[in-house]
Amino acid sequence: MRILFIILFTVCSSTLLAQQATVSNKTNTGKYVLVIHGGAGTLNKSQFTPALEAKYKSGLDSALVVGNAILEKGGTALDAVEATVKVLENNPLFNAGKGAVFTNEGINELDAAIMDGKTLAAGSIAGVRTIKNPITAARAVMEKSEHVLLSGRGAEAFAAMQGIEIVDPSYFYTPERWKGLLRAKERDSIDQLKKASQTAYNDEIDEQRRKDKYGTVGAVALDTHGNLAAATSTGGMTNKKWGRIGDAPIIGSGTYANNKTVAISCTGWGEYFLRLVMAKSISDRMEFGGQSLTLASETLVMKELPALGGDGGLIAVDKNGNIALPFCTEGMYRGFIKKERQGAAVVKDILIFK
Amino acid sequence: MRILFIILFTVCSSTLLAQQATVSNKTNTGKYVLVIHGGAGTLNKSQFTPALEAKYKSGLDSALVVGNAILEKGGTALDAVEATVKVLENNPLFNAGKGAVFTNEGINELDAAIMDGKTLAAGSIAGVRTIKNPITAARAVMEKSEHVLLSGRGAEAFAAMQGIEIVDPSYFYTPERWKGLLRAKERDSIDQLKKASQTAYNDEIDEQRRKDKYGTVGAVALDTHGNLAAATSTGGMTNKKWGRIGDAPIIGSGTYANNKTVAISCTGWGEYFLRLVMAKSISDRMEFGGQSLTLASETLVMKELPALGGDGGLIAVDKNGNIALPFCTEGMYRGFIKKERQGAAVVKDILIFK
Repeated sequence: MRILFIILFTVCSSTLLAQQATVSNKTNTGKYVLVIHGGAGTLNKSQFTPALEAKYKSGLDSALVVGNAILEKGGTALDAVEATVKVLENNPLFNAGKGAVFTNEGINELDAAIMDGKTLAAGSIAGVRTIKNPITAARAVMEKSEHVLLSGRGAEAFAAMQGIEIVDPSYFYTPERWKGLLRAKERDSIDQLKKASQTAYNDEIDEQRRKDKYGTVGAVALDTHGNLAAATSTGGMTNKKWGRIGDAPIIGSGTYANNKTVAISCTGWGEYFLRLVMAKSISDRMEFGGQSLTLASETLVMKELPALGGDGGLIAVDKNGNIALPFCTEGMYRGFIKKERQGAAVVKDILIFK
Repeated sequence: MRILFIILFTVCSSTLLAQQATVSNKTNTGKYVLVIHGGAGTLNKSQFTPALEAKYKSGLDSALVVGNAILEKGGTALDAVEATVKVLENNPLFNAGKGAVFTNEGINELDAAIMDGKTLAAGSIAGVRTIKNPITAARAVMEKSEHVLLSGRGAEAFAAMQGIEIVDPSYFYTPERWKGLLRAKERDSIDQLKKASQTAYNDEIDEQRRKDKYGTVGAVALDTHGNLAAATSTGGMTNKKWGRIGDAPIIGSGTYANNKTVAISCTGWGEYFLRLVMAKSISDRMEFGGQSLTLASETLVMKELPALGGDGGLIAVDKNGNIALPFCTEGMYRGFIKKERQGAAVVKDILIFK
């Protein structure tokens, strides 16, 4: 029942090739990879019209184009993942920045993290309400503070001090996400009633609950200098309460990069990614267990994650440019750009379902 | 120049043995281990009087006695680490609960985490100001919410809803920690002046800054049923700003437990533990690299941590009951209780310096 959508954007690739031909950078290998995601588990194929599909793919493509422009000129993986995630944050289709889901209190609380595989430097912010591009604030934490993880109003004050764009919380309002919150609250009430009457759970409602539950954006890159970087940004879980923080801003769980192994950005039911310390587990299986990226990431995402009761997916690129995009949900918004060497064609794929 | 303090509490051990003799639990091995710490890197041997040393050791001993009473009766590792950390939280000598350091704004913001090695269930809270025993709130997050990490006022609301003891923020005031904040602020001002005039850093002041910077409490245990658990609690870094969160509440960094491998609780300069994903790195080196606990933990704490520029230590107990207590600072408040089998003597050590 699963249909494979593989779209090779040959027109776009040709354009990229034309750009690349004008650049001659002898200090680098010319090989680069960029992989992005726009969330997993929030999709329902039956409700997907061709128009909606095109809209999502166009959103992913815009991000890849921006990242490609940086990497193609010999820019850093770090710059590429930040810029790429920023594009996705600014797109209301995805659950990050503009388009973030609402908390139980009807506000938007954003989390983001970035990591540099070359130095293991990392920066994260959690629970911020007024930072237009959380990923840029996470990078400022990494580069301009002695800290790794800043939270809440304090993180906002730090970002403002760094001259990062602050917006009114109303900037993050979108009617779609507001409806999502109302749906989630309604389902919560139904759940309470069901629990009270001991009625069996209705699968359809359960599926809807999962659908509104999460969504994240992320990017990982290998640049022409052989450096890896990872970035993740999210509005978290619809209807979240109690200052809940998921895996996205947690180094080693939702976000990790290490030049020795791999760069990873996760999306899914955050609590399970936290308990598995997802990204670091994959990196360590590669570093200490001699596992391939495919084996390590498939074991975690397709076996260990569902075995615990969770679901989701991730994107990864290893130090050799191999990529993995496993997910155990119905779909995951995802895409990649890959160039094997100077003069080679740029290959681009953008996919949604399996 | 380093003096080894090893105190074998034979009197206490005999008492414990007497208690144990009255218990007959055929469902368990009789073997258990409990290791605790009260922080690393905050010590200065030259300023340590015998009276002060006795005070700290007595504080650590009180915690071990409580944990021992639970494990000795066949109680769970989870109950033991929670109860042990609670004793340390209630002791103003240690930087957790009562005795927590102050933030730059002159308030106390507490973090804690707990993890069950049997199920990989985990719970954490970050940045709370009114929860008397953060470790108990972390356990409630693990057992009574669908979440892993709750933060700020939301975490406090959750804890209150669970009937967990809430106190006025003034409960956490201690004159020693207030003085520590004033010292830290003064040093920050001196740093600013020095930076402005490009004067070289004064090592003595730098040492003082490190001294006030951190401190944590933690416990790890192997119970008689073969289960591991870890718990960590802290007030974080003196003079911390911007809602900074360290490694203590982060599963995989400051706290981790997995029955397949090891239970770990860290203490030190949190940012470096976050970047190294310290605890999970050690667990994975054991699981996938076939390394011993000693090799894995020494490599991380004595090599990788200082190589990045950080310092600190950790306590660990593996699934076979082996323990490790490495630290690359001047000292680490630490102690353990170990019983090899039913009828064996309970061995207890409490140490501060190398």
